[in-house]
Amino acid sequence: MFTTTIEPRVSETDGVGHINNTTVPVWLEAGRNELFRLFMPEPDFSRWSLLVVSTRIDFTSQIYYGEPVEVRCQVSKIGNTSLTLYEEIHQGGRLCVKAETTYVHVDPASKKPEPIPDRVREQLQQHLAG
Amino acid sequence: MFTTTIEPRVSETDGVGHINNTTVPVWLEAGRNELFRLFMPEPDFSRWSLLVVSTRIDFTSQIYYGEPVEVRCQVSKIGNTSLTLYEEIHQGGRLCVKAETTYVHVDPASKKPEPIPDRVREQLQQHLAG
Amino acid sequence: MFTTTIEPRVSETDGVGHINNTTVPVWLEAGRNELFRLFMPEPDFSRWSLLVVSTRIDFTSQIYYGEPVEVRCQVSKIGNTSLTLYEEIHQGGRLCVKAETTYVHVDPASKKPEPIPDRVREQLQQHLAG
Amino acid sequence: MFTTTIEPRVSETDGVGHINNTTVPVWLEAGRNELFRLFMPEPDFSRWSLLVVSTRIDFTSQIYYGEPVEVRCQVSKIGNTSLTLYEEIHQGGRLCVKAETTYVHVDPASKKPEPIPDRVREQLQQHLAG
Repeated sequence: MFTTTIEPRVSETDGVGHINNTTVPVWLEAGRNELFRLFMPEPDFSRWSLLVVSTRIDFTSQIYYGEPVEVRCQVSKIGNTSLTLYEEIHQGGRLCVKAETTYVHVDPASKKPEPIPDRVREQLQQHLAG
Repeated sequence: MFTTTIEPRVSETDGVGHINNTTVPVWLEAGRNELFRLFMPEPDFSRWSLLVVSTRIDFTSQIYYGEPVEVRCQVSKIGNTSLTLYEEIHQGGRLCVKAETTYVHVDPASKKPEPIPDRVREQLQQHLAG
Repeated sequence: MFTTTIEPRVSETDGVGHINNTTVPVWLEAGRNELFRLFMPEPDFSRWSLLVVSTRIDFTSQIYYGEPVEVRCQVSKIGNTSLTLYEEIHQGGRLCVKAETTYVHVDPASKKPEPIPDRVREQLQQHLAG
Repeated sequence: MFTTTIEPRVSETDGVGHINNTTVPVWLEAGRNELFRLFMPEPDFSRWSLLVVSTRIDFTSQIYYGEPVEVRCQVSKIGNTSLTLYEEIHQGGRLCVKAETTYVHVDPASKKPEPIPDRVREQLQQHLAG
């Protein structure tokens, strides 16, 4: 499991007074930085190989400014060319968000699907949801 | 159907060169401005009554800077206290995003679910997906 | 003058109830899309040649959700390798933001300053502040 | 001095490959969370008393995805009803951003300028730039 602590920002709230729902995908992606590093140890966008295919987010409890949140990212399925993540966001002991996101692994130049390399696959398996 | 034209911003792209996936929920919400006005003719966040419960987004084609997109928002289901939207984003004749988002209608003060008012319900029905 | 109309988004407000101050630079940059096109008629980030050097923003009146804003962008100074813009944001007849932003024009590969091409210089002069 | 470490996000980069310039004000505001707490120990947006009057940002070096940045916030001037901050952003030993931002302290209800309370003034003085 990849765990990332994020301090909510004033700019991430909205007029209703909570964290705006559009901030949640931003935090989920921020919680994948370590995962991205498995695919691309040295940051180089010209070799970026992961494209989001779909995402499903359940908002189970409001998130507020003033208290850190924890983004928890687990691998739920490793396909041949695809990767599915199960993610949660917690704040103050409350489960606020459950999400499932699927990526396709592509050749950076052609953008065509390409098998996930064995080296990465082995590392991903250590983060598989129990 | 509520139709909104949006001009992509440089700040909405990412290092990979496309519109970042986290921009999509921002545009979908921007495409609901007219819908929000049905619930709250005069903008007043203290009386905001719609909370996102869940969202599901399928990314079917990359979106690029330099060409406007069209956000299309239809009502797919009107429950007693809930509202489900079906939305699409198109760019240059390509379908790029399909999304389904469910809101719960609440009492602004207590945040407890509350039936969608009849006046709004009638207006929503005119935007029901065929 | 380049004029761009923008409909404020819920996600651009903050808990205080106004448009958050960090949204303003996003709108100012969005108001430069037509200017960017003078430098790069076909969008291609690998040939992007404008880097922000400095910006100064005066916030003169609050901006609210629910009413469109107008971003007005004028060229205030054309140097050899630099370009300074004077920008304003208006909402409902109120002047809400005054800003001055300086770009340096660079060679896309080396990122070294490079004179603004004559072809672009002539077009920029038509947008000089009176 | 208030020091905040921030991990750049993919969504904060742009097509040019760097952190987009509009991300910088977001990070600067994120670096003021501790300062905001001096004014409002318990987060409550209905009692928010600081409004941005002006900001000036110098971009001295590009910021990249893949390495944390440090936001350093100092108080440079405490007026009767105003507060000026001097801020820097550093990445990997490079000074990337210098900024100066002025807030006005207001009565939360009337939005009229109001003297900074003595209790807060004393705490601010401990963060004065040398």
